[in-house]
Amino acid sequence: MSATTLIPSDPTMVKDFATVFARLKPHMGVLDVFLRGQLESFEPEIREMADYCIDTSGKRIRPALVFLSGWNGSEVPAQELVRVAGVVELVHLATLVHDDIMDEADLRRSRRTASRQYGPEAAVLLGDALFAHALHLAAQFPTTEVCYAVSDSTRKVCAGEIVQTLRRGTTNITREDYFRVIDLKTAELFRISCFLGSKLGGFPSEFVDAASRFGRHLGIAYQIYDDLADFFGQEKQIGKTLGTDLQSGKVTLPLLALLERLPADDRALLVDEILRRREPDLAGRLRQMSELGIFDMVAAEVETELVHAEAALGPHGSLAPVGLLMQLCETLRYQVRNLRAPAGV
Amino acid sequence: MSATTLIPSDPTMVKDFATVFARLKPHMGVLDVFLRGQLESFEPEIREMADYCIDTSGKRIRPALVFLSGWNGSEVPAQELVRVAGVVELVHLATLVHDDIMDEADLRRSRRTASRQYGPEAAVLLGDALFAHALHLAAQFPTTEVCYAVSDSTRKVCAGEIVQTLRRGTTNITREDYFRVIDLKTAELFRISCFLGSKLGGFPSEFVDAASRFGRHLGIAYQIYDDLADFFGQEKQIGKTLGTDLQSGKVTLPLLALLERLPADDRALLVDEILRRREPDLAGRLRQMSELGIFDMVAAEVETELVHAEAALGPHGSLAPVGLLMQLCETLRYQVRNLRAPAGV
Repeated sequence: MSATTLIPSDPTMVKDFATVFARLKPHMGVLDVFLRGQLESFEPEIREMADYCIDTSGKRIRPALVFLSGWNGSEVPAQELVRVAGVVELVHLATLVHDDIMDEADLRRSRRTASRQYGPEAAVLLGDALFAHALHLAAQFPTTEVCYAVSDSTRKVCAGEIVQTLRRGTTNITREDYFRVIDLKTAELFRISCFLGSKLGGFPSEFVDAASRFGRHLGIAYQIYDDLADFFGQEKQIGKTLGTDLQSGKVTLPLLALLERLPADDRALLVDEILRRREPDLAGRLRQMSELGIFDMVAAEVETELVHAEAALGPHGSLAPVGLLMQLCETLRYQVRNLRAPAGV
Repeated sequence: MSATTLIPSDPTMVKDFATVFARLKPHMGVLDVFLRGQLESFEPEIREMADYCIDTSGKRIRPALVFLSGWNGSEVPAQELVRVAGVVELVHLATLVHDDIMDEADLRRSRRTASRQYGPEAAVLLGDALFAHALHLAAQFPTTEVCYAVSDSTRKVCAGEIVQTLRRGTTNITREDYFRVIDLKTAELFRISCFLGSKLGGFPSEFVDAASRFGRHLGIAYQIYDDLADFFGQEKQIGKTLGTDLQSGKVTLPLLALLERLPADDRALLVDEILRRREPDLAGRLRQMSELGIFDMVAAEVETELVHAEAALGPHGSLAPVGLLMQLCETLRYQVRNLRAPAGV
């Protein structure tokens, strides 16, 4: 199976996930039509570039959170949910386009990044245009609530990315620093997807709050998984260049945990490698991580967040979205396990 | 006098402009307090970076357009005008931060650009955060109108910048291409400043339309002036690196006019220089431009736009904003003349 989709291909193992995503298929189809339709409103010169970014091979986790949080059992998603799913996906795509410039990444979803395809200069502006279009869609709701929430979240996402960028190539980073950054850069957009989905779905405010907390913890869990995959994934499965965090001196949880657990001499060597931006030894670091049980330690952090996420929804088990949202936690657990023992290995 | 402000220092020549800007002094003071207050809502790590961008030495033309278009003669600007002036200025600052990354410019308003100060990576995100904050302020109006208008304008500004970027280092550019780009990348934000100022100022829709047309033509005129200044300005006066357009292969109106008027052989050399991105000969190009009357030809295009701008306001001469807006056209005329014969030369 491919770790890039939320639908594992082995039906015996993953019946639950297949159920979730089979149910979302019509929703995602409507979303795709909606996003393609938005291309019309771009200037001709950038339509192709925007189209390149709005591809269909992405995970679309944030739109899924919108649809699932606003779930009422209907096969046909409400237009408002489709639009807000489009908004969060466009904001996410915009941040990916800008991220890939900074990471100097070559691949994203197994294709050249927009930055490699069109050059970093055009990519800066393309990201801006996607983001502006997201806000333009957000402004098409009857009240300013969506605009307000989305612009605030975007500001937080940017702040998280900036803090992360400023810290690159430094090693005096605490777990608290790490968690603050991923709360801003990833969990915020997960949170708002659940907030807006449940809100526009007409659910009571107690559930909207609970869904928002669920989204935040799922987002933290997802980012830890993503950082783990940058070390332990397989390039073909993950669909992007691996080892980019180590390469760019970004200290994520696996590396942080390695720094904590290495004997003093080895730690000093690793710190020196990061500070001097020396060519990293990915294979060597993976070996050290294996020896020191880093995978299990980081996977346990994912699990802690998933438990928090599930606990937030616990009291609302009778509502339609809850069962489906809970299954997303199982999906992520499966993906983490799959990193450790990829199918066919 | 400095060409970087709209208040010339020679009072005998420029009584009119001094009148306009003396009147706006309290408004700009309130705007500065407002913008500084916004810094509080940024994450601590990026506050200093945002503060660096929200300096007070800028021209603040777009806020001036908001205040003047909504002018009711009061010394104390309405809170709504201050907020919308802040929105358009933040969008503008965000685009400057991103522009300077792409132009690889060293100086902006006589200081290091954000890209040089903090690195291009942080600058990409800083621009995003400023833009997100602008939209967040726009979402604080009672209706979605401001968000809708600002996000649409921003998308157009980005489209204009992208088209310009894609054309860099190419020479098969028509005047129509040039005017379309500056309409998108500059005139749109001037237009919306006048649109929102007059609208929030409570003026009738006929005037809102007229003020919007005025803003658009003033914006086109201003961009042509700016492109002229990149060749004919003096670095100290303009406050930014000169010759960057030629250096980066950006074919603006002065260069376009030079291409049109040069004898075939010289034109072929210039085309070759641009296509091969060879080190340009700014002094030589300026000499050719002088010989071929390029300055006057481009200045005449500025004048044409200013006449259109004035004509839009003509039927509304009895309204409070009109006299002051008209004086902005005089300001720009003065600045163009001042490029040709800088004070003290």
